Amino acid sequence: MFDIAPDFGALLVFIEHRYYGESKPFGNDSYKSADTLGYLTSTQALADFAVLITSLKQNLSAVDAPVIVFGGSYGGMLASWFRLKYPHVAMGALASSAPILQFDDITSWSSFYDAISEDFKSESLNCFSVIKAVWDVLDDRGSNHTGLLELSKTFRACKTVQSADSLSNWLWNAFTYTAMVDYPTPANFMMNLPAYPVKEMCKIIDSFPAGADVIEKAFAAASLYYNYTGDQKCFQVEGGDDPHGLSGWGWQACTEMVMPMTVSNESMFPPSGFSYEEKSEGCFASYEVRPRMNWITTEYGGHKIDKVLKRFGSNIIFSNGMRDPWSRGGVLKNISSSIIALVTEKGAHHLDFRSATKDDPDWVVEQRRQEVEIIHGWIDQYNKYIAQM
Amino acid sequence: MFDIAPDFGALLVFIEHRYYGESKPFGNDSYKSADTLGYLTSTQALADFAVLITSLKQNLSAVDAPVIVFGGSYGGMLASWFRLKYPHVAMGALASSAPILQFDDITSWSSFYDAISEDFKSESLNCFSVIKAVWDVLDDRGSNHTGLLELSKTFRACKTVQSADSLSNWLWNAFTYTAMVDYPTPANFMMNLPAYPVKEMCKIIDSFPAGADVIEKAFAAASLYYNYTGDQKCFQVEGGDDPHGLSGWGWQACTEMVMPMTVSNESMFPPSGFSYEEKSEGCFASYEVRPRMNWITTEYGGHKIDKVLKRFGSNIIFSNGMRDPWSRGGVLKNISSSIIALVTEKGAHHLDFRSATKDDPDWVVEQRRQEVEIIHGWIDQYNKYIAQM
Repeated sequence: MFDIAPDFGALLVFIEHRYYGESKPFGNDSYKSADTLGYLTSTQALADFAVLITSLKQNLSAVDAPVIVFGGSYGGMLASWFRLKYPHVAMGALASSAPILQFDDITSWSSFYDAISEDFKSESLNCFSVIKAVWDVLDDRGSNHTGLLELSKTFRACKTVQSADSLSNWLWNAFTYTAMVDYPTPANFMMNLPAYPVKEMCKIIDSFPAGADVIEKAFAAASLYYNYTGDQKCFQVEGGDDPHGLSGWGWQACTEMVMPMTVSNESMFPPSGFSYEEKSEGCFASYEVRPRMNWITTEYGGHKIDKVLKRFGSNIIFSNGMRDPWSRGGVLKNISSSIIALVTEKGAHHLDFRSATKDDPDWVVEQRRQEVEIIHGWIDQYNKYIAQM
Repeated sequence: MFDIAPDFGALLVFIEHRYYGESKPFGNDSYKSADTLGYLTSTQALADFAVLITSLKQNLSAVDAPVIVFGGSYGGMLASWFRLKYPHVAMGALASSAPILQFDDITSWSSFYDAISEDFKSESLNCFSVIKAVWDVLDDRGSNHTGLLELSKTFRACKTVQSADSLSNWLWNAFTYTAMVDYPTPANFMMNLPAYPVKEMCKIIDSFPAGADVIEKAFAAASLYYNYTGDQKCFQVEGGDDPHGLSGWGWQACTEMVMPMTVSNESMFPPSGFSYEEKSEGCFASYEVRPRMNWITTEYGGHKIDKVLKRFGSNIIFSNGMRDPWSRGGVLKNISSSIIALVTEKGAHHLDFRSATKDDPDWVVEQRRQEVEIIHGWIDQYNKYIAQM
């Protein structure tokens, strides 16, 4: 956005979502209980944006200025929903890596982990197989105290690990987030990483002798994610921070943002199902609320999205990179002449929103060029229409 | 709706709005304070409807059944807003007498009382002039205790009236509500009234000798509204119930439903302006909240409604009767081939929603026929579109 704003003579406005960053309506008590967290909803956030944009335009004497909303990931969902709910406030939306179809049963519940598995398998079958094999070995060796002591050493844990599950989670997060940020250039979004980090991880795994310990292999691969810069002397395997650092997301995931996930037998992760009861009990224990499975599709739609958006929507770009597991819950096909899906085979999680670099491959440059062209088209159309009024 | 439902093979569902009727989320404490009333918003009500309709259709195994929402007055606003915000839930809306443009400065603030004045003037200039003259006389005579005693007798007040303002309000309400319900047939919506009650009121006024007391004339006219059936021995001029009997509306009018009203010099009512400060102080005193003047247009739009709805809306009928003062804040012109304004010169407040009677004039019969025809068209189109999926 910093790159393209001058081309549009645009004012960039970053609106902080309530309950994130410094926008805490009840200060440090904001995450205390359902009483204070109850005002943390996507609907309220969208209303905040509407009020802020409308009021800002009035204050700037720019009531007729066209507004385009941009967002990536959850922000991308918000951008597309904002365009649907507030067409009188924003005349277009660029929703990057927005999994608005990852709700109810619209998208297969196993698609997310299947996609990650495909990413790794596409680099090397051995890489995929090593990761697939590691979970059972980890459970097995981590089933007693001696085993956990040894594993703690292998994983260079800062403190002795109390359960094998922590080690599984630690690996799991490394593979999952690396797939999401499998960018074609060096980047520092979640972590500092080289270009094509999934390929790099698989190179590490493949560089071991075939007979080497799968846990050594998996740890070395995960180290790329946690320690690419090489400055970590040990790892906070247990009790580490949520990589998002988002205290509000737990609440949102327990109320409205319920995206059921399962792991299929074909995946490189240990197979698992989704239990609403289990999820619900966890949410009740944490917040005294129960998740509303169908709320998002009731509020924003999602079923038969192509038919509905074709009739009622316009001026939305849904961009997705297929290396990103969230892409599977995104809109991947054009819906109309003004609801456009831009899909890149090698793209990752909202890659298009990253600043241009000299190493960008042509297909990223082309994707960003298309986005700018489409948005120019919307604005031209908007200006003609404003001129008629 | 009862009349036409069989023709559509339709299930009629009446959804009670939260905080009205028996839908009190905190029981008898519901109207206690801003803490409990805070959940009374149009946005929350629309979300209730979305949840109820979606869930009901699932329970009835009728997920694909077309849904049309109907509403009159505030309910008409809700119907049109529901269609805009939840196009995936309702495929059409009939919004009768819905003053969605009575916000901000979209519609002239004096239009409401100007329209009532026009109604009375259209029946007789004398009628208009008598009513216009009554307010000063009332203030004058009611400025001392003796005057109030006499006026209380004239107005057949059950208890001696404490201020002339009460008498003004009593008359004011009679003229205002009678204009709203100026139906072409006998009806019992606000009160039991004959056909064309404004005409009847003016007949009463005009039947007095020219020199008779204007207060006698005005009281006799107002009695038509309060006592058409003749069973009232005295009138509760002070401390009578709000004719709507809606404890929730005070809150809504003090938070989001802010429709500024003024009285112009051309009106038959005593001229007055609108003071946000005064309104705000009153609301703060009652509920410890301040009204949000621009909220409704921020949330639902309203400015440039024709341009916005043409692009983003479809399948809405806005019906209005021009005898109804609320019509001035309604959508009175077709916006597109599927956003239709049905306007009747002699219609009143959501007349089209009243059951058919044998005395209905042709133009009401025709208006209702058009509504049914348009809705049939929407459903035919919907069924074709469902069949393609």
